[in-house]
Amino acid sequence: MSKAKIPAATIIRLSVYQRYLKKLLARGVKVVSSNDLAKQANVNPAQLRKDLSYFGRFGVRGVGYSVSTLLNSISNILGVMEERTVVLVGTGPIAQALIRQPGFSQQGYHFAAVFDIDKKNVGQEFEEDLVVQHLDELSDFVKESPVELAVVAVPSDRTQEVADRLVECGIRGILNFSPNRIKVPRGVSVQYVDFTILLDSLTYNISRHKKEEEEQKEEKAAFPKLKWGREHSWPVVQSNNTMA
Amino acid sequence: MSKAKIPAATIIRLSVYQRYLKKLLARGVKVVSSNDLAKQANVNPAQLRKDLSYFGRFGVRGVGYSVSTLLNSISNILGVMEERTVVLVGTGPIAQALIRQPGFSQQGYHFAAVFDIDKKNVGQEFEEDLVVQHLDELSDFVKESPVELAVVAVPSDRTQEVADRLVECGIRGILNFSPNRIKVPRGVSVQYVDFTILLDSLTYNISRHKKEEEEQKEEKAAFPKLKWGREHSWPVVQSNNTMA
Repeated sequence: MSKAKIPAATIIRLSVYQRYLKKLLARGVKVVSSNDLAKQANVNPAQLRKDLSYFGRFGVRGVGYSVSTLLNSISNILGVMEERTVVLVGTGPIAQALIRQPGFSQQGYHFAAVFDIDKKNVGQEFEEDLVVQHLDELSDFVKESPVELAVVAVPSDRTQEVADRLVECGIRGILNFSPNRIKVPRGVSVQYVDFTILLDSLTYNISRHKKEEEEQKEEKAAFPKLKWGREHSWPVVQSNNTMA
Repeated sequence: MSKAKIPAATIIRLSVYQRYLKKLLARGVKVVSSNDLAKQANVNPAQLRKDLSYFGRFGVRGVGYSVSTLLNSISNILGVMEERTVVLVGTGPIAQALIRQPGFSQQGYHFAAVFDIDKKNVGQEFEEDLVVQHLDELSDFVKESPVELAVVAVPSDRTQEVADRLVECGIRGILNFSPNRIKVPRGVSVQYVDFTILLDSLTYNISRHKKEEEEQKEEKAAFPKLKWGREHSWPVVQSNNTMA
């Protein structure tokens, strides 16, 4: 594997490619073109090839990628070959919605335990076979069943305190549903889920498209004859000049 | 504004900078250094300067950025100056959790209506002042109150059908809580929320850190004397050779 630093966006796209390759494999498809695979991830084929180039050479020019080989390689790169255990911290509406999402188990993520910082929820049956434990019990839990990933959905003002406890217990990756930035030591990663940032991106795209459309309209309004002229009369003018 | 294509990751980071600038403004802070601002977004200061360079010149070398000026400029770039109206499609657990998230209104996004494709939920009070309407009523709704953004949290096999209807009614940005890719015409943007892709990123980071640590250990195990030698005995050996 290359030592170059892999952009975070590339890692995200590898997951998107992997999802699609899984579907193709299930449908019995053996080979996929870079055009088709790139389209699925909303990137151009050059971006796809660049993403894969960080990790070695894949595919055969003019033929495409072997679905099973590329799927294996990407899963291996991501380290998502086998089922991964996750603990959930929090029992509010977001936590309740997450535990019911079929997507987690479909992608090999299994919620092994639910913890809360609030004593009043401890002991309640959260989901089938999942009773809420107090966060104090996490250190004993990880001794029995090692786990490195945590999904955190607690009120913003408690996330730093929860993160500190998780890191002490050996958690190395935190998916945080609070937009507040948290401090973690080197070797621990945090991903933030902030839906409003995605809405901002959409808002930006909408206003960019509008500006583009307006600019095109203004261009047409300002130079209607020039544009027409360019397309149709220029050769005539030129030929006049040449003839003169 | 520059005509260069702005990377999607830059737009995401602009939102992160904007969140922090808002907090600074609320605390009465007038000037922020690029180091401080970059740290908040988990990027290096060079990345921050590159992100801002797409949109013009900001900041004064050695002084930093004016909080209010930069906040205004970024909000203007993103097009998020005023309150934005959003419609929600879906009434399941994710939709229920979203409508209760205080983050949306804090960032100026206001849920104006809730729609469902399932007739049995229509007419129910979903949240205070929000009664579930059937998606068929969206075209009449947008005539009264124009809206361009939709949050979609419906079962995966219904997202394409819902997206088609939204686009017909003039929706230009879709935040999709199903990982299934949907097809939209040019000028319409989609952002996908797939939590497992973020878990994949965390998994990748964890395995990368482990590999780095192992490599460092192996290096030490393979060349313990050389390493010690490099630091301490090399000059002695050299001086021996020179003396011989």
